[in-house]
Parts: sequence; structure tokens; C-alpha cells
Amino acid sequence: MATLEDVLATIDANGQAALDRLFDLVRIPSISAQAQHFPDCERAADWLVAQLAEIGFESRKEPTEGRPMAMGVAKAKTRDAPHVLFYGHYDVQPADPLELWFSPPFEPRLESTPTGERIYGRGAADDKGQLMTFLEACRAFKANGGLPCHVSVLFEGEEETGSPSLPGFLANHAKSLKADLLLVCDTSMWSADTPAITTMLRGLVFEEVVLTAANRDLHSGLYGGPAINPIRVLSRILADLHDDQGVVTLPGFYDGVEELPEDIATQWRDLGFDAAKFLGDVGLSVPAGESGRSVLEMLWSRPTCEFNGIVGGYTGQGAKTVLPAEARAKVSFRLVGRQNPDRIQQSFRAFVKSRLPADVKVDFLGHGGSPAIGLPARGEALRRARRALEAEWGKPAAVVGSGGSIPIVGAFKRELGMDSLMVGFGLDDDAIHSPNEKYERRSFHKGARSWARILAALSQ
Amino acid sequence: MATLEDVLATIDANGQAALDRLFDLVRIPSISAQAQHFPDCERAADWLVAQLAEIGFESRKEPTEGRPMAMGVAKAKTRDAPHVLFYGHYDVQPADPLELWFSPPFEPRLESTPTGERIYGRGAADDKGQLMTFLEACRAFKANGGLPCHVSVLFEGEEETGSPSLPGFLANHAKSLKADLLLVCDTSMWSADTPAITTMLRGLVFEEVVLTAANRDLHSGLYGGPAINPIRVLSRILADLHDDQGVVTLPGFYDGVEELPEDIATQWRDLGFDAAKFLGDVGLSVPAGESGRSVLEMLWSRPTCEFNGIVGGYTGQGAKTVLPAEARAKVSFRLVGRQNPDRIQQSFRAFVKSRLPADVKVDFLGHGGSPAIGLPARGEALRRARRALEAEWGKPAAVVGSGGSIPIVGAFKRELGMDSLMVGFGLDDDAIHSPNEKYERRSFHKGARSWARILAALSQ
Repeated sequence: MATLEDVLATIDANGQAALDRLFDLVRIPSISAQAQHFPDCERAADWLVAQLAEIGFESRKEPTEGRPMAMGVAKAKTRDAPHVLFYGHYDVQPADPLELWFSPPFEPRLESTPTGERIYGRGAADDKGQLMTFLEACRAFKANGGLPCHVSVLFEGEEETGSPSLPGFLANHAKSLKADLLLVCDTSMWSADTPAITTMLRGLVFEEVVLTAANRDLHSGLYGGPAINPIRVLSRILADLHDDQGVVTLPGFYDGVEELPEDIATQWRDLGFDAAKFLGDVGLSVPAGESGRSVLEMLWSRPTCEFNGIVGGYTGQGAKTVLPAEARAKVSFRLVGRQNPDRIQQSFRAFVKSRLPADVKVDFLGHGGSPAIGLPARGEALRRARRALEAEWGKPAAVVGSGGSIPIVGAFKRELGMDSLMVGFGLDDDAIHSPNEKYERRSFHKGARSWARILAALSQ
Repeated sequence: MATLEDVLATIDANGQAALDRLFDLVRIPSISAQAQHFPDCERAADWLVAQLAEIGFESRKEPTEGRPMAMGVAKAKTRDAPHVLFYGHYDVQPADPLELWFSPPFEPRLESTPTGERIYGRGAADDKGQLMTFLEACRAFKANGGLPCHVSVLFEGEEETGSPSLPGFLANHAKSLKADLLLVCDTSMWSADTPAITTMLRGLVFEEVVLTAANRDLHSGLYGGPAINPIRVLSRILADLHDDQGVVTLPGFYDGVEELPEDIATQWRDLGFDAAKFLGDVGLSVPAGESGRSVLEMLWSRPTCEFNGIVGGYTGQGAKTVLPAEARAKVSFRLVGRQNPDRIQQSFRAFVKSRLPADVKVDFLGHGGSPAIGLPARGEALRRARRALEAEWGKPAAVVGSGGSIPIVGAFKRELGMDSLMVGFGLDDDAIHSPNEKYERRSFHKGARSWARILAALSQ
């Protein structure tokens, strides 16, 4: 009978084929935020359904009101094995600004560096590379007599746009999806050598504000002075959202935000996080969040208000003396603790409305919201996963928080009562959501090996 | 011998041919702010040189460091006639946002309305339609025995980008360009029935601010909090530029700004300006400038600080949780009285620099500057032009200020010691610099007749 070592050997022997498969998936520009790429989202889902079928899963594409789900289920070789549900997302972020990519975002390529090979392409890490680590582990088990756990998989195509269809889908498919544990591969390692399990995630509220004033763009000479300028109004509103200590001024914003318990604060200090290097790697030196907080606190246990985009008036080359009719901004809030996304959205909208001068109208576009997540940090699954990761990487796995939001973890808890195990192999410099996104080939390879070990550990 | 009435009759008889000529010129997308349209600027200059030759001018294209000048000179039929220099510009504003045009901006068309026909197209008014009124007047004189004045013309192709080459060009060609009076057709009527002569013009300083922070766009979850957001910094800087009474807070900004003399204030009150209608026509109701000032003051005798464009981060459809590396804004100041453009540029740059937190760098792109202009409001040329305009329109011409900037008027005064006579036939609703720019066919036709009368009046 095949052993875990046989499975790991199969993964090692099939590195090139695995890479080819990942490249095929990255080539599909499945950008969920842009309507012209909706057909590509369908293609990515079809590709995954075929992939699952190839490795012996019963698989299918399921429609939603938005992008479809790709689903699969496969039995373990022993009947009383535990049942896990693996979640990933095949959709990716928009690739712009395109001019900053060194090579086309949807033509994946391998590049050698002194620290190993890298896979470049939009989605190479987030989340195509990550989800393929799990499929490659399943493939290797299938080649060696079968899976150690019953495995369901669910790949969605709307993660980058706030997963609008997911909660309803989970509610409607509760029976077929419910499992003992949710596995998620959409997080990072602690460092290139140290794996991590994530147990805290920030939530998110994403709002778009559109201010309009005059009924058309005006000449700033002929109207400048008496005509209200929506960029001026928008700037004032955005400026008012923080005080000079970096504290968010939205009324009620900090309701449900608690100080970090001393034991967790100690644990985080012991991680030896190098804040100077973290900032220095992206060209920064001074933490810009609330004064008096450590960088890890700012990232994992403090909420934020960020401006993700702003546009108004003439933005081309040279000068144009226009007084614009419209200005818009994308504003998001990262949430922690028990902050309520709905209440924060309401407070933000009231904040904006209360600052509108005469003749300025506002429209809001909501792009989703989800509360922060805290997961059991002392359970049996976590203990087994830590042991498996240590066996693969030779170092204990860090138990960490994450500044990012994975709203689906909350949806699974709420809709199906399932806890999650979040293990991922991304690195801080993967440039996910940025130009030149990459995934370490080592992450891809050892990620697959890690999932093989975790599945084996969970089944024992 | 031909009379002025013969000249006017010739203009009346050739309306369709004149319109065809204007359409030919509007079809050339001579956008001086965009490098891809530089060849079109050359074409527009060539077209004007040919046009001048056709009506008997000695004409030529003259290179500059930027876009070329189109020049021409023609003698009067009597040797001791006065010598005028006519200035116009063949370059136009960018046409974006294209999606707001009802028809393509560079495919001119005529549209009938209850108040007369309109000529639609980018540049139909500013300044192609306006400059063609003068050429059509010259053409009609040429068909009737010759010009009453010696006429030089100078058409530049960089007016919409701040006329960077003009001052040097004037200095280098002082001898051939110097005339008794400069005629400029780049301003508006007081109303659709009442012509106007403009004697006050605001100046302009146009700056572009580029803030950069991290060395790449970041994920707002993974970096949000400790990483500084340049949109936040930019919003704060822009918000700080006005107080809550609409007063510009830049140190020294109001140096050289004087209160309006009582006699001019009275004259402006007597114009019967309808501020409610002026604002209402563009969908506004409440003046947004400095409190306690009339709308005409805000437009003609008070300086402003306007935001002409802003952009940073993700501005496409939907959500993208990016924390941008860069944010930029185009900021312009309209100047009055003796405000010094250089000092205001310096004050602005110091203002921005003093508000930069750690890790944020700034680059400034200057897009030109010019002081405000005051012209003799009681001279002989003005008296003759008023009489000529009254004869054409049946109403006395208003003597007005203008909120816009025509920096070249200052350049001619400075370089050649020439005063200007600014007469134009635009209307407030021409939407120059906006989508669906138009010029009234009546403005085009009676504008040519007005210039014929003015040239005749100046020669008597």
C-alpha cells in the first residue's frame, strides 16, 4: 500500500507537468471586476471542472447570479475518514496599470533568481497558484491508491469583488457542502522559510462615492470662483476621515474594537517581526497608521480607512483648465473585532452627506462588506496541521493574524457552521493585486507537499 | 469704389462657403496637449497658411520649439492706413470625455434650434470659429478692392497649453510683428444680443503635483495601516488650500489683489448680470466662491484656486483593494491685479512640501503662468470699436472683464509694447473646453461683419 512518502515522491516527480497546468490556468484572464472578462471567468470554471474530472472527482459547474462555481467531490479510500471542504477562487484582480508589468500579465513565465525560480503572472499567487497546490496534492494521492479524507472542493469566481453570490449559494447547497472542516489556501507564509496558519482576519467595507455638481464640465476661467468644484468637496471629505494622529474620525467607527489581550500581544512580539524590513521592502520607513501602535497591531488588530482610488476632471498629459462636473473615490475600511460592516457603511454615508455643500449630489456604490474573523487557535485540526507543516518545512508554523479580508471564511461559519483552517504559501513580496505578481516555485512545490501532509495528518 | 456695405454684402452672400472653410479647419484634431496630435497641429498651420495665401496674404509657417506659427501679412489699399496685428490660435482642447459627445468632436455639423443654427465640434468656437470671423472679413475686403488697414496675422498652436513658445517668438520677430494695435478674437459676447469688449483678464498659474510613496502599488489588506496612502496625503493638502469661507489659504496669495474701485463696481452692477441664470444654466444655484462677493466679482476681479484633475489608485469598474503608490492632481490659480505668478507658484510648492509626511516624495510639473491683464478702457481704438459693434448689433457694446486667461495679451504688451482690442463672439453656453462645444452660426456670420466694420472704423 502506498505511503505518504510515495505521494510526496509523486509530487516531486511531476513538477513540470504541475507547472504546465498552472500556466494554463493563469493564461485565462478571469477578472471578475470587469464585464468584458465574464466569459473568461466561465472558461476558468470549465477548466477547473475538467481538471477535477481528470483526477477522479465527480465535478460540475454551478451557475450563480454572477460568476459560476466549479465544484467537485471525491471519496476517501476508507469510509470513516474525515470530510474536508477545500475553498479557492479562480477569479483575479484587474491587471492595470498594464504599463508597469515587465511582461504581459496573462502570459505566465518562469524566471530564475538567486533564491529560486519564480512564476510571474496575474493570479500566479492569488489564488490560482495557491489553489493548485491543493489539487496537485489530491492528484498525487489519486495516483497512489486514493485520498486519505473525503474531499469536496468549491472554487468561486467572485472573491475579488466581494463574493456577492457566495452566501446565498452556501445556504442553497448547505447539505452537499457541509463538511467537518474548511481548508482555505489564500494566505501567506510567515517568511520564506516559516509556514503560517492564520487565525485572525480583518473584515472589509468597500464603498464608492460619486459626487456631481454642475450639469457638465465647465471652463475654469469662465466659471472658476462661483461654480462649486466637486474635487474640492471630495478632498475635504476624505481629509476629514482621519485626524492628525491617524485615527479614523467616523462616528462609532471604533465600536467593537478591543485592545489586544496581553497573551496574544506577547505571542506577536515573540514572532520577531522586522517592521523596518517590512516597510523598507516597499520603499517606506515610517509607520503611517494610528500613533502609538506597533506595525503588527496596525496590520492585524486595528481597523483602517483607505482610499483605493480617486478620479475627477482632466487626468491626461499637460494642462486643461476644466472645472469638472464629477469626482469619485473608492474608499474601504478594514475591520477588526466586532465592528459591524452595515453600521460602518451607514456611518460613512451619513458622514459624506453631512459634508455636502449646496448643489453637490452624491451617489454611493456599495462593493460589499464582511465582519472580521477570529478562528479557534487551540483546536485539534490546528495542532495536526502545525505538525504536518513543521515536518515539511523544518520549522514550527507561526500562528498569525492577517490584515487582509477573506470574507468567505465568515460566510462558511455563518451559513454552514464550519470552522476553517487557513494555510497558504504566499510571500509578502508576491505583489498580489499589483503589477508583476509572482509565486515562488518553491511555494508551489512545497505547498502541494504540505497539503499532502496535512490531509494525511487530518485522517489519522 | 467699393463701400463697407459692399463688403458686408459679400460676407452675406458667401455664408455657405465660409461655413465649409470652418468645417475643414474643425476637422483637423489639432490638440496641442497630446503628442499624438502634433502632426495635426502641423496640418492646421499648413491649412491656415494656404488659406491666407488664397486671400492674397504673403504667408508662411514658422517653426518654434513646440507647435509652429502660421503667419501672414497684407498691405492696405492706402499706404498711410493703420497697421493691426490679428492673433488667434488653431490648437484646441482635448476632446475627452468622448462618451459625453452627441456626435464625434472632429466631425463638425450644423444643428437647427429655435434660436438659430449651431455649429458643433471641438474648436467650433475656441478658437477656430472665432479666428475665421476675422479671415472672412479680410476675404470680403479683398474681393472688394482691398483691406482698409495693413493687416498682419499670427496664429499659434500652443494657446491651450500655456503658449510656451510665444514670448520668445515675439522677441525674435519683434520687428515684423510690431503693429499699432493687437486684435484678439478669443472672448465672449455679453449676451446673445449684446456684443462686448474685454478689458480685464485674469492670469493663470497651472501646476501638476505628483506624490509618490511606496515603490509599488500595495494590497490594502496586507499593508493598510502602516503604509502611507498618497491619496490621503493629497486630499489633506488640497483640502487645506481653502478655508471654510472659500478663501485661499496659500501664504501671500492675496498680495497685489485690490478691492474693486467704486466706479467700476457701479458699472458692473449696471450690466444687469443675472447670477441666478448664469449658475442655473449649468445646474447650480449657490455661488461657491469667497463669501460676501458678487458672482461677477468672483469671476472678474477675485483670484481662485481650482482643482482641474485628480487621479490615483484604481479608477476602473468595481472594487480593487489597492493601496496606491502614486496620486496626482492638476491645480490652477486664476490671478487678478498685481498677483505675481512666480511667487504664487513658489508659495504653492512650499505649501505642498511643508505638508508631506515621511516617505512621501513630490514632483511638480509646471504648465505655465501669466499675470492678470488690465487694458486701457478709455482709448480711441476702443471708442471706434464700440461704435462699429453698435452699428452691427444695434446695442451698445458692454465693456467687461473676463474670468479666463489670455496670457498672450500680456506677452504682446511685454515683448512688443502693444495694447490689445479684445472682441469675441462666443456665448456662455458654447461649452468650450467641454463636450459638445458649439458656436452660433449667427456669431460666425455677424462676427465676420463686425470685424469688417471694426477694420473700417479703425482706418478712418
